[in-house]
Amino acid sequence: MKSIKHIVIISTLFASMLTHVAAQELLSPDGRQKLEVGLSQEGRPYYKLVFRNKEVIKPSFLGLELQDQESLLDNFSLDSISTGTFDETWNPVWGEQREIRNHYNELVLYLKQQSTPNRLLNIHFRLYNDGLGFRYEFPKQENLSYFIIKEEKTAFALTGDHKAFWLPGDYDTQEYNTTTSNLSEVRALMSEAVTPNASQTSFSPTGLQTPLLLKSKDNLYINIHEAGLIDYACMSLNLDDKNLILKSWLTPDAVGNKGYLQTPAVSPWRTIMVSDKAADILTSRLILNLNEPTAFEDVSWIKPIKYVGVWWEMISGKSSWSYTSMENLKLDEVDYSQVKPNRTHAANTRRVKEYIDFAAKHGFDAVLVEGWNIGWEDWFGKSKDYVFEFVTPYPDFDVRELQQYAAERGVKMMMHHETSSSVRNYERHLDTAYRFMVEHGYNSVKSGYVGDIIPRGEFHYGQWMVNHYLHAIRKAADYKIMVNAHEAVRPTGLSRTFPNLIGNESARGQEYESFGGNTPDHLTILPFTRLVGGPMDYTPGIFQTDIKAYNPNNNSRVNTTLVKQLALYVTLYSPLQMAADVPEVYNRFLDAFQFIKDVAIDWDETHVLDAEPGDYIAMARKAKGKDEWFIGAITDENARTLTLSFDFLPKGKKYVAIIYEDSKDADFETNPQHYHIYKQTVTSKTKLKQWLARSGGVAIHIKEQ
Amino acid sequence: MKSIKHIVIISTLFASMLTHVAAQELLSPDGRQKLEVGLSQEGRPYYKLVFRNKEVIKPSFLGLELQDQESLLDNFSLDSISTGTFDETWNPVWGEQREIRNHYNELVLYLKQQSTPNRLLNIHFRLYNDGLGFRYEFPKQENLSYFIIKEEKTAFALTGDHKAFWLPGDYDTQEYNTTTSNLSEVRALMSEAVTPNASQTSFSPTGLQTPLLLKSKDNLYINIHEAGLIDYACMSLNLDDKNLILKSWLTPDAVGNKGYLQTPAVSPWRTIMVSDKAADILTSRLILNLNEPTAFEDVSWIKPIKYVGVWWEMISGKSSWSYTSMENLKLDEVDYSQVKPNRTHAANTRRVKEYIDFAAKHGFDAVLVEGWNIGWEDWFGKSKDYVFEFVTPYPDFDVRELQQYAAERGVKMMMHHETSSSVRNYERHLDTAYRFMVEHGYNSVKSGYVGDIIPRGEFHYGQWMVNHYLHAIRKAADYKIMVNAHEAVRPTGLSRTFPNLIGNESARGQEYESFGGNTPDHLTILPFTRLVGGPMDYTPGIFQTDIKAYNPNNNSRVNTTLVKQLALYVTLYSPLQMAADVPEVYNRFLDAFQFIKDVAIDWDETHVLDAEPGDYIAMARKAKGKDEWFIGAITDENARTLTLSFDFLPKGKKYVAIIYEDSKDADFETNPQHYHIYKQTVTSKTKLKQWLARSGGVAIHIKEQ
Repeated sequence: MKSIKHIVIISTLFASMLTHVAAQELLSPDGRQKLEVGLSQEGRPYYKLVFRNKEVIKPSFLGLELQDQESLLDNFSLDSISTGTFDETWNPVWGEQREIRNHYNELVLYLKQQSTPNRLLNIHFRLYNDGLGFRYEFPKQENLSYFIIKEEKTAFALTGDHKAFWLPGDYDTQEYNTTTSNLSEVRALMSEAVTPNASQTSFSPTGLQTPLLLKSKDNLYINIHEAGLIDYACMSLNLDDKNLILKSWLTPDAVGNKGYLQTPAVSPWRTIMVSDKAADILTSRLILNLNEPTAFEDVSWIKPIKYVGVWWEMISGKSSWSYTSMENLKLDEVDYSQVKPNRTHAANTRRVKEYIDFAAKHGFDAVLVEGWNIGWEDWFGKSKDYVFEFVTPYPDFDVRELQQYAAERGVKMMMHHETSSSVRNYERHLDTAYRFMVEHGYNSVKSGYVGDIIPRGEFHYGQWMVNHYLHAIRKAADYKIMVNAHEAVRPTGLSRTFPNLIGNESARGQEYESFGGNTPDHLTILPFTRLVGGPMDYTPGIFQTDIKAYNPNNNSRVNTTLVKQLALYVTLYSPLQMAADVPEVYNRFLDAFQFIKDVAIDWDETHVLDAEPGDYIAMARKAKGKDEWFIGAITDENARTLTLSFDFLPKGKKYVAIIYEDSKDADFETNPQHYHIYKQTVTSKTKLKQWLARSGGVAIHIKEQ
Repeated sequence: MKSIKHIVIISTLFASMLTHVAAQELLSPDGRQKLEVGLSQEGRPYYKLVFRNKEVIKPSFLGLELQDQESLLDNFSLDSISTGTFDETWNPVWGEQREIRNHYNELVLYLKQQSTPNRLLNIHFRLYNDGLGFRYEFPKQENLSYFIIKEEKTAFALTGDHKAFWLPGDYDTQEYNTTTSNLSEVRALMSEAVTPNASQTSFSPTGLQTPLLLKSKDNLYINIHEAGLIDYACMSLNLDDKNLILKSWLTPDAVGNKGYLQTPAVSPWRTIMVSDKAADILTSRLILNLNEPTAFEDVSWIKPIKYVGVWWEMISGKSSWSYTSMENLKLDEVDYSQVKPNRTHAANTRRVKEYIDFAAKHGFDAVLVEGWNIGWEDWFGKSKDYVFEFVTPYPDFDVRELQQYAAERGVKMMMHHETSSSVRNYERHLDTAYRFMVEHGYNSVKSGYVGDIIPRGEFHYGQWMVNHYLHAIRKAADYKIMVNAHEAVRPTGLSRTFPNLIGNESARGQEYESFGGNTPDHLTILPFTRLVGGPMDYTPGIFQTDIKAYNPNNNSRVNTTLVKQLALYVTLYSPLQMAADVPEVYNRFLDAFQFIKDVAIDWDETHVLDAEPGDYIAMARKAKGKDEWFIGAITDENARTLTLSFDFLPKGKKYVAIIYEDSKDADFETNPQHYHIYKQTVTSKTKLKQWLARSGGVAIHIKEQ
């Protein structure tokens, strides 16, 4: 239901006489969140946020520093204020719940600079029960048409030295383990936190990424991020660790400018989720709600996907993406039919058929194949412009034969476009590549942006690239193609508007378990941080936790138990879920694999049973359109016992629960593959005391008896 | 006729023992040019050039400085040398002469670095009768695959303080008046030489552009440029004015790197034309000869074009490119049918029909229309990414009606694509824009790159943009479209390989006569400098030399007489020639206009009758496939009398010459439009003593009686 009221509570005439405006207050619909906004004596706009009478954000200034013209920082007077309320329930194309309520009270400050050139700036606040969103709006006006942002000056003044779950601020990557520390410790821990990556650009010894999760001494959970990042640079935060103020820090372009805007324009929403319950961060839909509804008229072609793929065997080092051992080739000069194969190329017709057979047998929707196209011999780190052309398979990969083979078995092929961050090259080939997909029956693509952006000087998270990612998504929609973009900018809820954006990486995924490992608490943090912006293609389901089994030279290990891998299908929401291990491994554990086969990937309801970031998460979800439920619970490096209440189930009805649990002797380091599966009748009154091994978990499939 | 011999004159075994190699000599086919090459004691390659026993280039080092790895500068030994000779005559698709002889002796130094990583570098020299070309060749080798150029270290050590005809070195523009001074005076004159431009980036107080013309005290004319600029940064020169050495200075990318190469690779040819006759610079085809023959199988669709266009009335400020007076618009949001026209928009159907009528009546091939497409209101200087979309006309421009109207009259429409240097945006629309052209009967496009490159940090002349220009040309060829690119990188003879590149600007064109003026000697220099690389769309033919006549607020004037404008059609070679003035002006001077109608734009022969850079040029050319000849002669700010010998005509045959000369009272400042036309019988024995007014000229049409 929609109901918006805009009331001008201070007339323009009156406001123009003010030099200091008394604070305005706004409450969330449930009254728990309280926003105060106003202008300082210098005409600087500020805001303050209070949750249940606890201060969350102390008075913090807002504004922007512009390049080559007077900034939008101070000297403002209040022209008018409008307030309103909005309440609507909408249905996502796919998601964690069938219905999402978008309910907020809003307040817009209409500001005017008091001296020439008398420019206008609106600051738009939406206060939800679960937090605040606000953005800058630059109305069309005579004296502000085109402008360059030198820096956005949004502050988040904190009330204390909170515990932070943080990633080093970076213009190019989020593929870091989360560091958990007090904010005052960030500076000392920074160099340790910055681990190597294929492309990385730190910008400050106290730089932090969003989504940033904070926990205050008085037990408030605060998540700072952004929503609706379109045609604007991605925001990081720079910590003033003396005053404990977080300050916006946009990603620059090659010459240091941070944004080129034209009025009318809006910034992305700056978001602050806050609650005294950790679970509320996980169930908040604030980011999605702040995005625009989709403009796609037809969304019938967009569907969640459960898939397997020719991938982990390369990640583990067993197989190769490349077909030959050449080290220096030019796409338009090499004749692959004349060169010697390296015999480790996984994306060959025979092997892919095994994946297709496996997918068909076990009811998977699709098979991803990486390394199918020419160019992988020297694709990385060479500043190579014409690195891939996206349409020519290696000689051992028969596109047509595989297309037919898969189609006959009801399986879709999933395309892979690694761009090597040679972005112009990708755009030059984009139409041809998408057309190729349509002609060969592919309806989804995993794209990748490994390495430094070409042209050099641009960053993964700058406005230039933000614009590119959306270009690729929009164009894909023209071809009815779903996109899962890796190494792209972190999601900000854009999948509401562009639901063909079915996945992103933008964090340290499972692949790092083969590159030295993720910390055991990593997966208990991701849902509180990275995932608030949108689903992640984490690629769970690695059963063979000792990577040596694939590749004797790889000493890495997956830092979870096997059961924790199962639980991830519930705790890490995504409409795109991979069973990432190889068929041969799954065939050795078919009883456990059954959970991956059964688990839903689209949901009617989501319930957090218990959660504490960095420690554990337990969630229950109802499969979309079915009276069928799944529970996933995971823990960090500590074994623990959780009490899982089944009170989310309909009252008075009996269900059977299939419980996949760590064996009593399981341990992620010493005995990760020991598990136990059993059935039990459950009702809404059931309370299950469940032990989880160190970095272990539990996965439960609940269905009608 | 082809005859290549490669002789290894020093065996690899023998060479590898040398640390200091005695100089090797090579003579040009006529023996007048002598090249000496060798290695210094430090293993640095050098070359030296002598013309008729006069030293042209003193021993000068060669090599490249690399980024992040050992440079290719010194420590070389000579592996082997090959020499050969080549003699072939070829026919350009269009050009200044029907047949071009490509005749040279060549020498290749095969160098090997003596210490790890023992890399290979070849330096390839081709010595012509008219000068030298040499390039770096990076063979495929184990220890050099991908590399980044920090700087190319090619030196041109001069023998004295030559007179130079120079433009300030710049990464973005060549639209400067030429400064004529001794090299030692460059530093003092630099700030004066750098006049404002829409995009400009000077790099050194002694930076110079190529083609650079030098005249030594002993009367040698030396032109330094490059040929075959493909996938490499454009070269400028930095003058060491203490030692009088010119040093290569490549255009960097946003992070300062000057090139990303992959072996096997070659640099462009560095060219040194040299002669004791100025005329030899004008007739040299060295740059074309150093480019590769075309790979296009069908060139029948490529034809020279004489055209008029809706252009000068905007350049002069009489009319506007834009349809409205809006100052801030978004292409996908504005409804042009609802906005108020500014009534000065020239590209409207009625007005364009007048141009089509005029073109048809006077036998022109095509009509260019600028400002036909939406977006011109705020196209420039806004850092606007989505600035044009190249397919939507303003509401007063009826594409289909005009297409039909023109087709019925045997006239082609010429497309215009101003990119505003928003290059990604152009590439995104390139296929659509070219398809639109094909669908609407356009077969040529004038493209423009005004303003700083987007993304910021890239330069007009960097490898990134060099790659783009060629991309646009290649793709245009797929659609059988001819390209005339303005503000693009200066030409380097690529039109031999890609003959659909029928024009470039890349210098100060006629438009500057409306922006404050060109110097009267400008046109006597261009053929010695800018034009050695390829044709220029200078857009001659402005008869109304007082710009006030178009626009009362414009005090500029064309700094030539009317007759000099006629002579330009002969002295400024281009297969694409515009009659740049408006029909109404031509209608007032139809007798003089007759020369523009008659003059050929493709040639069998070209003869320089007399020339001295900066002073005067007199040329005769034979129309392709016709017994018809044209003479053009121009002078600088000084009136002068030239004696024109007609000995280029076939012996013993009488012709009628129609002579368009400055009236005796003509003067570019006081009386530019006074001219006199008369006929005279001429033979090969005719010698015409012809007076030229200050910045005046003469134009002569010679045909069978």
